[in-house]
Amino acid sequence: MGFDPNSLTYNEAGLIPAIAQDAESGEVLMMAWMNAEAVARTLDTQRVTYWSRSRQSFWIKGESSGHVQELVDFRFDCDNDCLLVLVSQTGPACHTNRRSCFYTAVRDGKEVELMAPMA
Amino acid sequence: MGFDPNSLTYNEAGLIPAIAQDAESGEVLMMAWMNAEAVARTLDTQRVTYWSRSRQSFWIKGESSGHVQELVDFRFDCDNDCLLVLVSQTGPACHTNRRSCFYTAVRDGKEVELMAPMA
Repeated sequence: MGFDPNSLTYNEAGLIPAIAQDAESGEVLMMAWMNAEAVARTLDTQRVTYWSRSRQSFWIKGESSGHVQELVDFRFDCDNDCLLVLVSQTGPACHTNRRSCFYTAVRDGKEVELMAPMA
Repeated sequence: MGFDPNSLTYNEAGLIPAIAQDAESGEVLMMAWMNAEAVARTLDTQRVTYWSRSRQSFWIKGESSGHVQELVDFRFDCDNDCLLVLVSQTGPACHTNRRSCFYTAVRDGKEVELMAPMA
């Protein structure tokens, strides 16, 4: 069946959450948002492209930082309202220079930092 | 630093997205939503508890199906606005009886089903 980005379910702002996972290690790297055009661009270019809610513009991941995400596999969930992009990540995914944005855990009621910024 | 569920950033509906990942295999199983009380209950009980937007009620994953998610690690991202829960998943995570909700890929412009319902 041919895929149409408009067949996905977007929220009232026209956005769908996209989880980026390292295709090799399985590590969950980040979550950001796409609109239908960002979905189309990601599939067309194989360069993961989000919609920046703060800047209200397309955000080709790594365009300025060099920390690009090359698309390895594009998946969506049973409700058509969440994306999972498997990626080949160059360098850190997080703007704090850590590999993953999910570097803080809650253990025994306390916050624990799991990883340091990359050198 | 002590953790307060209210220190997270919730959307205008008071919700935060929560990605559930299999703690052993690394497979991303599903994405659902929590409010501050669901976060507190998840941490207190070690049973992953979401907020059902359709039913407008707490949703202790597996309470009716038996497909429970036992919390292994609770993490949040650099913006405090997305959760990653590593879980021990009993049976399928998806209501379609598949292990993961992300069973559809888009490859060469076509939808491909990656896994069948569990027996």
